Amino acid sequence: MLTAVIHGERDIRVEDFPEPVLASGPDASGRDAIVRVVASCVCGSDLWPYRGFRSIDRPRPMGHEFVGVVEQVGAGVTTVSAGDFVIPPFYVCDGTCVNCRNGWTVHCLHGGAWGGEIAGEGMAGAGQSERVRVPLADGTLFVVPGGEPAAELIPDLLALSDVMGTGHHAAVSGGVRAGSTVAVVGDGAVGLCAVIAARRLGAARIVAMSRHADRQALAREFGATDVVAERGEDGIAALKEMFDGIGPDITLECVGTKESMDQALKSPRPGGQVGFVGVPAGGPELPVPTMFSSNVGVRGGVAPVRDYVEELLPEVLKGDIHPGRVFDTEMPLSQTADAYAAMDQRRAIKVLLRP
Amino acid sequence: MLTAVIHGERDIRVEDFPEPVLASGPDASGRDAIVRVVASCVCGSDLWPYRGFRSIDRPRPMGHEFVGVVEQVGAGVTTVSAGDFVIPPFYVCDGTCVNCRNGWTVHCLHGGAWGGEIAGEGMAGAGQSERVRVPLADGTLFVVPGGEPAAELIPDLLALSDVMGTGHHAAVSGGVRAGSTVAVVGDGAVGLCAVIAARRLGAARIVAMSRHADRQALAREFGATDVVAERGEDGIAALKEMFDGIGPDITLECVGTKESMDQALKSPRPGGQVGFVGVPAGGPELPVPTMFSSNVGVRGGVAPVRDYVEELLPEVLKGDIHPGRVFDTEMPLSQTADAYAAMDQRRAIKVLLRP
Repeated sequence: MLTAVIHGERDIRVEDFPEPVLASGPDASGRDAIVRVVASCVCGSDLWPYRGFRSIDRPRPMGHEFVGVVEQVGAGVTTVSAGDFVIPPFYVCDGTCVNCRNGWTVHCLHGGAWGGEIAGEGMAGAGQSERVRVPLADGTLFVVPGGEPAAELIPDLLALSDVMGTGHHAAVSGGVRAGSTVAVVGDGAVGLCAVIAARRLGAARIVAMSRHADRQALAREFGATDVVAERGEDGIAALKEMFDGIGPDITLECVGTKESMDQALKSPRPGGQVGFVGVPAGGPELPVPTMFSSNVGVRGGVAPVRDYVEELLPEVLKGDIHPGRVFDTEMPLSQTADAYAAMDQRRAIKVLLRP
Repeated sequence: MLTAVIHGERDIRVEDFPEPVLASGPDASGRDAIVRVVASCVCGSDLWPYRGFRSIDRPRPMGHEFVGVVEQVGAGVTTVSAGDFVIPPFYVCDGTCVNCRNGWTVHCLHGGAWGGEIAGEGMAGAGQSERVRVPLADGTLFVVPGGEPAAELIPDLLALSDVMGTGHHAAVSGGVRAGSTVAVVGDGAVGLCAVIAARRLGAARIVAMSRHADRQALAREFGATDVVAERGEDGIAALKEMFDGIGPDITLECVGTKESMDQALKSPRPGGQVGFVGVPAGGPELPVPTMFSSNVGVRGGVAPVRDYVEELLPEVLKGDIHPGRVFDTEMPLSQTADAYAAMDQRRAIKVLLRP
């Protein structure tokens, strides 16, 4: 079967891999499943190693966002069956540890990353593949009722594996509620999904910070009421002016650079909040005196997207929200290298891959 | 009248000052009041200039926590009258600007600090004094119903001018609610009031981080269920062990040093929260990658204590909470220099001053 593998900076190759098999042997718990991938995609965070910002010590299979159909399950799996259409999150989790019970499956004490070793459960598959071995299938896989859905729903469902849940996490971390005024920093797929999230949580005004016409248009389609093209100090000043001279209630940081976090922290009104989900690139630090003197809180991180599927899925199935529209390009899995290049060069917002 | 003035490092002098008078003249709005101080006190933050951590460019009258009786009001004052017993917050505010309307009077666009110039309203008095001129009296002063209260209530009421509201702000910023598990970093007066606040908000367990027997005892009296004497990495490890190996839901940072903030940030469980009110001493910075990978949020700052009086005052008047017990020492205003020394040397938790 085919799998996309990173070999080095800007070096993605689709290679033939052995078919995944259910675990067996003395250490195996039989808690895994084999999933046939219906669709996967490239994440903005996949671009960090692609661009050489993270070292690549060995060839590594890629991809942590996918949806698919279960083909086989281990003897210990109880909630998932062959034929089920499933949404995994961008991580593996058991659903039973104390963090999972707290609603923080992304911090599962026994889980881990796609393409990585899960303690006592063997290697998890990677998503930019034809088939994936899913350890801890009961905790990891969310079963979509009714089997394989209509083809036009696939992009929206795929978005629930990461990007929509991550945008939602920004909004939840920012405390968006009915009547909130919100500015979204970042017009990538996550930022655009944060616009959807802010809208469905009832925000009264949503400002998309964007200087690209296509992304501005999608942001407006998703519910943005205003667009601001300025960045940095100019962007902060524009927001202050729009909102009583003091700024919006909340900013959602969906980039991860020092500049974007700085802009996000300085934009809200006194007592406001930053919700952040941008993967920190380069290790920015937050100045406590600035936070102290403004009472602007900062909260966010890796999104517990598995925990959000239950809330978001019904709206996807009803067609109330269409996060899958962030996939503006579709390619076969065999062209994964082109998909990375298109996103790297910002020719595509986000590329959906079909095996 | 007597006022305490700082002249330099560890140099506090009680000096004779002209009696304050209501503003008059073409720029005066008549929105001020003269308050006779019934009690004032020394704040932990007063120790920063006292210890030389903040430069003192000129002799400056001190004190921002006091309660008293109104003696005169300007022609434009409508909600406060002579004879009223009043609680001001540790700042001046008009109560009408957009930040005040948002519930953030501490960020009033037209307010300022005691002992400082209030734009268009003249100089605000300082609290370690016999009498104080209060600009923007309608917004600043909270009138306690019923005139001057019983003497034994004075310390509890004085605590509402800063220390209790600040402890409450830590708890509110940390999101304490019924059932929360909470650790309080700092056993000063603010930390102890944070214990009271966490208790009244319904925390299930409250850990006081303290190594001083007298403060441990007061923390327990205020509602702490546990005491941890360890600090730093040992303190973090002790908390993790107490709470399922992952830590409490919330930490309340009530010190302001880099070390205390570091301990507060690393202690909560994944998805937890830090509420912080310690005045940042030395400008610590928060590592975003640590926050990202733990989903621990950080929120806090200067407390909008004026906004909290309405919620806290009834419990003080009923005797349900006794934040005034943080005043373990009482001195006459003439001995203010001794009061600073006692707090500096940690011989007193907090000193109440009577003119």
